[in-house]
Amino acid sequence: MKTPKYIGVIGAGTCPASTYNVARNLGFEIGKRGWAIVCGGLKGVMEGAAKGCLEAGGMTLGILPGLDKNSANPYITIPIPTGLGDGRNLLVVRCSDVLVAVTGGYGTLSEIALALKANRPVVGLETWEEIPGVHYAHDYLEAIHLIETLLPQSSD
Amino acid sequence: MKTPKYIGVIGAGTCPASTYNVARNLGFEIGKRGWAIVCGGLKGVMEGAAKGCLEAGGMTLGILPGLDKNSANPYITIPIPTGLGDGRNLLVVRCSDVLVAVTGGYGTLSEIALALKANRPVVGLETWEEIPGVHYAHDYLEAIHLIETLLPQSSD
Amino acid sequence: MKTPKYIGVIGAGTCPASTYNVARNLGFEIGKRGWAIVCGGLKGVMEGAAKGCLEAGGMTLGILPGLDKNSANPYITIPIPTGLGDGRNLLVVRCSDVLVAVTGGYGTLSEIALALKANRPVVGLETWEEIPGVHYAHDYLEAIHLIETLLPQSSD
Amino acid sequence: MKTPKYIGVIGAGTCPASTYNVARNLGFEIGKRGWAIVCGGLKGVMEGAAKGCLEAGGMTLGILPGLDKNSANPYITIPIPTGLGDGRNLLVVRCSDVLVAVTGGYGTLSEIALALKANRPVVGLETWEEIPGVHYAHDYLEAIHLIETLLPQSSD
Repeated sequence: MKTPKYIGVIGAGTCPASTYNVARNLGFEIGKRGWAIVCGGLKGVMEGAAKGCLEAGGMTLGILPGLDKNSANPYITIPIPTGLGDGRNLLVVRCSDVLVAVTGGYGTLSEIALALKANRPVVGLETWEEIPGVHYAHDYLEAIHLIETLLPQSSD
Repeated sequence: MKTPKYIGVIGAGTCPASTYNVARNLGFEIGKRGWAIVCGGLKGVMEGAAKGCLEAGGMTLGILPGLDKNSANPYITIPIPTGLGDGRNLLVVRCSDVLVAVTGGYGTLSEIALALKANRPVVGLETWEEIPGVHYAHDYLEAIHLIETLLPQSSD
Repeated sequence: MKTPKYIGVIGAGTCPASTYNVARNLGFEIGKRGWAIVCGGLKGVMEGAAKGCLEAGGMTLGILPGLDKNSANPYITIPIPTGLGDGRNLLVVRCSDVLVAVTGGYGTLSEIALALKANRPVVGLETWEEIPGVHYAHDYLEAIHLIETLLPQSSD
Repeated sequence: MKTPKYIGVIGAGTCPASTYNVARNLGFEIGKRGWAIVCGGLKGVMEGAAKGCLEAGGMTLGILPGLDKNSANPYITIPIPTGLGDGRNLLVVRCSDVLVAVTGGYGTLSEIALALKANRPVVGLETWEEIPGVHYAHDYLEAIHLIETLLPQSSD
């Protein structure tokens, strides 16, 4: 078995259609490259990215705050109910080889910070600004390019 | 997307070949029915069950105690590194629709107890005896039959 | 600062008056020796033990499943809300130098198993029987004597 | 029993003497008011604040990332070993009635974000700037004044 690279996609749980489409395009490019998406499993950016990834034939993990598998958005192929509330944010980070933040509020900010603390590379797209260590992209294709550069080159 | 039923397989991290084969046969029957395996991702019973499930074309989740995806056994299709140590036992339980315990030590006993506390059905096979609430099976086929009976009938 | 030894007292969340009194007597002897109690912070055995310990001038930590400090019983001097549900059981275990189980259901069984897995000594009093590794006592004074024997002799 | 208000003090694990003294002064004022300090239990800002609080007769909780009670700084009266690594950050947040961030890196940023997500008031002192929702203070006395204003008025 060869496990795909896990790309954490973090971002707002509700968002306008334009952001949803950015996330979906990003997710499609992720799936196209044979990477999997790890996310919080809910709506907004998480759903857009999962939808795109699934449309490209990719795998989508949703690490849920609650205990109900059915609380995942419909594009999550592997729901992981945790019952940990925001405690699941750390699990999203620990599972990811690289993370991409797309917009987002305090939850996303916590994930960016936890990722940087844990030495996971973070790409930022229309998200919290001027955080040292974040690799900022101007559009989803630049984000994909940054992910390619930042992915660990190990064989896992 | 239709998420498969998640069958938690818990048990000893090291075991004789005879137990490994029981776990592998059990895993094969699980995969054959389109269910996925959730386990702790390590060796012994976890590996045997994952191997069997994969041979039947099934999906195998390994919720790992450590932070390294590569610590999963080679039959885990979806490693989930947590860094929570034995704290991951609760996640194995919360993810599972039904659990099967095959042999096992204190870690398995903790999972049986956490599962019963959380109202998850537990099937027991050559494991901790006389725990009220556990549905004991004499062989892996009876365990499969019990799982079929105990699985929640919801559409998830 | 010299931190007191932490004695984990685990057991049923509801119990008859006779069990409550055993827990209270046990807690009193614990507090009298300058040890602190770590427990789940709720009713039943946890409350009886905390009450006794407090009456002897001892400190009582309650590691709560929920998010509300006020859900602790009135004899908890230091409530620790976690929001982790049964995930807090592992924290009770990890905090304790020695644990005593007094009666108890599945939650208590999970704590006994997690403690033994983590190499914490466990004393049993009217609780789950015949678990290898548990030091069984016939009454609360024998339990105290066993704790004295089992406590790590380090200076912490 | 009346539980004291819990003031979370978060900040850098290593810091210059000037920052340590700010934290110590802050901690002293916290202890003087009968509040307890909740912190991560390690060095730097956490130690300075705990030292000051203890000098004023206050209680100091250290929610530790590791499993060893002895990893706490010497001014922690109640060490809580968790073994959760950065997962303990969420517990610091959930335990606190109000938090004060003094300087700090990514770990502190994660705690600020988790606190704001959980609707805990956050006071900032020489820390991450321009985070919406943080109440910024210019010195430790203003921080104390802000805490007094922000503390929930419940009777717990």
